[in-house]
Amino acid sequence: MKKKINIAIVGLGQIGGYLLKEINKKKNDIELKTGKKIQVVAISAKNPNKKRKFKINKSIFYKDPIQMINKKKIDILFEAIGKPDGISKKIVEKALKNKIHVITPNKALISKHGDSLSKLAEKQKVNLEFEASVAGGIPIIRTIKESLATNKITKIYGILNGTCNYILTEMEYTKDNFKNVLKKAQILGYAEPGNPKLDLNGYDAFAKVRILSSLAFNKKISNSKCLMDGIENIQYKDIEIANQLNFRIKLLGITELINNQLFERVHPCLVKKDSYIGNVNGVMNAVIINGKPVGESILQGEGAGPGPTSSALMSDLLSILRGNIKYPFGLPFIKRRKAKIYQLKNYSNSLYLRIEVKDKPGVLSKITKLLADRNISVERLIQIPDHKLKTASIVIITHKSKELDAQKCISLFKSNKNILKNPVLIRLL
Amino acid sequence: MKKKINIAIVGLGQIGGYLLKEINKKKNDIELKTGKKIQVVAISAKNPNKKRKFKINKSIFYKDPIQMINKKKIDILFEAIGKPDGISKKIVEKALKNKIHVITPNKALISKHGDSLSKLAEKQKVNLEFEASVAGGIPIIRTIKESLATNKITKIYGILNGTCNYILTEMEYTKDNFKNVLKKAQILGYAEPGNPKLDLNGYDAFAKVRILSSLAFNKKISNSKCLMDGIENIQYKDIEIANQLNFRIKLLGITELINNQLFERVHPCLVKKDSYIGNVNGVMNAVIINGKPVGESILQGEGAGPGPTSSALMSDLLSILRGNIKYPFGLPFIKRRKAKIYQLKNYSNSLYLRIEVKDKPGVLSKITKLLADRNISVERLIQIPDHKLKTASIVIITHKSKELDAQKCISLFKSNKNILKNPVLIRLL
Repeated sequence: MKKKINIAIVGLGQIGGYLLKEINKKKNDIELKTGKKIQVVAISAKNPNKKRKFKINKSIFYKDPIQMINKKKIDILFEAIGKPDGISKKIVEKALKNKIHVITPNKALISKHGDSLSKLAEKQKVNLEFEASVAGGIPIIRTIKESLATNKITKIYGILNGTCNYILTEMEYTKDNFKNVLKKAQILGYAEPGNPKLDLNGYDAFAKVRILSSLAFNKKISNSKCLMDGIENIQYKDIEIANQLNFRIKLLGITELINNQLFERVHPCLVKKDSYIGNVNGVMNAVIINGKPVGESILQGEGAGPGPTSSALMSDLLSILRGNIKYPFGLPFIKRRKAKIYQLKNYSNSLYLRIEVKDKPGVLSKITKLLADRNISVERLIQIPDHKLKTASIVIITHKSKELDAQKCISLFKSNKNILKNPVLIRLL
Repeated sequence: MKKKINIAIVGLGQIGGYLLKEINKKKNDIELKTGKKIQVVAISAKNPNKKRKFKINKSIFYKDPIQMINKKKIDILFEAIGKPDGISKKIVEKALKNKIHVITPNKALISKHGDSLSKLAEKQKVNLEFEASVAGGIPIIRTIKESLATNKITKIYGILNGTCNYILTEMEYTKDNFKNVLKKAQILGYAEPGNPKLDLNGYDAFAKVRILSSLAFNKKISNSKCLMDGIENIQYKDIEIANQLNFRIKLLGITELINNQLFERVHPCLVKKDSYIGNVNGVMNAVIINGKPVGESILQGEGAGPGPTSSALMSDLLSILRGNIKYPFGLPFIKRRKAKIYQLKNYSNSLYLRIEVKDKPGVLSKITKLLADRNISVERLIQIPDHKLKTASIVIITHKSKELDAQKCISLFKSNKNILKNPVLIRLL
């Protein structure tokens, strides 16, 4: 690699703007550590006149990033637009085709098109780096790809969405409901003001899970339908009851190989209050990796925000500058096989069920009979009466039960006239 | 780098033996990931006939590792003897001089001679890698050197010695004394049967702290006298009292820059029971890094044993095979300055003091007066009487107090005839 390296940044929002500042601030440090002189020679965004917290150098500004690539000699390009398709995909492909290394924090893009993009990058012998796409400042991708490179990883799980973790933590602390806490999160900048849906419904965490599976198990990125539940329906009542039972509710992303079949899922989980993961609160992210021979490894840190994200983007930059050419997913594209998919219907797990019922004789026995008929055995049962409304909450922790049986039970409950609302089901870790 | 890579392993104890097995087992995986064909072409140990759990190939065995280097064409050498000087140093120097990349888990060697060895490696344009020297399977060195490369790190602390953490955890759970638990640790293989002193007196953790400081702060490895206290004098009584006060006792390694002056220390700490670090139990290691802009990062994992150590050694191997040539300490040798050293006497901290006294009038007031005279102000004081012996334990948690004042107080206490034993001092985190 030559000594002078030209850099372009596409997208000058929160991330791109912070990154630009960081690069300019740390030029000398980077030269000291890598021997390379870097210079930002081109920047691109939709609107040159948008109000920004920083000044942009209009002489290197391009409204059209494709034109920018055609006109400028660029060695490394940062994509910080963040779309799963469209211009993000176009610009990354164009760059790779022109033998430009690409660095991106774009989990939507990588989880959707990571395979074809990595194939292209390998063909062109350039890097495609995406450390910032999963868990922000936590170096989880480099850890899997490099530090644990020869380990056999069997399971990765963790808190991969800071927005959801903040909301669940805050609901517990303030005893407030989901809607109010979401509003607060939006005001504090922890949740998107416009459309926070992709965080809340589990989609964001799921994109990260897919990237992690692929890296950890050396498989193609899966695209099969999967278990994805968000936190939109979590009520304070369940957080409170969980608390009494010594649990906390956390939105977890989990990926594992069961009999060499890939099982990916994102859903709220009841985790023990005194467990490690039960104590990762607020906007923090955490990832737990089970590998052989390394054992259990835990990484925790800030999962989002321009600071931690830039830290990860810069680590990718230095990796490229040091000449550390790697397969984007650790293995050559052609050696990464499609994963066999684990069938959700085979899955057994302990469950937390809350069923709101009319408080009258026979209701409890009907519920327990329905459960027994489906081979769902009860580990704990608590009935909490509401004397005013003449209703009761029946809370059940089951022994390990088949997911399929539980779903059937739930649908039977729904049609029972003594059961007042849709039952709540939360899985135990 | 050529395609066929010759490897040598010096030292075939627990680590070297496990590593040899791992390398042979994972040859194909390594070729897939790096494109390089590796072969172990030479091994060396003191005794070819020693009873080992694995067979050694005598045709590639050398009793004298220097002769081995002279005779064989070697590209990468693993040093797994573990001495701070002597043959370990000799063989690493010899290898580097012959342009052989070196990988070692030897913290004693690196913390003592890391500077001169890194200078030599840089001159010869080969790698000197030591991921396994700190916290075993936790990729802390790669994380500081690569993932957080452009962060300004201000503090690193953690549990860096699994033996001590096991003993402290086990003392709490079994309510047993230090000696008995140490014996158990030795039987289980968590503490060296012969001479566990270097683990217990803090020396082992200290060597790791010195390596971490150097990497995190881009300084030469310090060799100044420092605060180092082990766990040999920790009594169950203090663990019990700490527990009642909602603390746990942990041996921590801490390094930080205070006004740009380096402050390194290893000592038992009272940490809050509900803090993260207070819940890292057993043989686990954990490291907490404060950096800008990344924020607080936590890494936890198994800190010792052949499995985790081999995982780290293999990550170094793959890094070299991918052609990731780096300065061993992140920066060129000549750019790493000597650190200014923080004066311990300026250090203020909250302290836990336990003083065993004769239970008679005036003793308590004498103690509190001595403390007040030295500007040590009391945050909490508990007197626990032993009516049978007519003695009492006075437990004090102080507000922030100068280390120097505390030491003077302790020496005054020692000369007081009403104070029965040497007072116990444990610092709060």
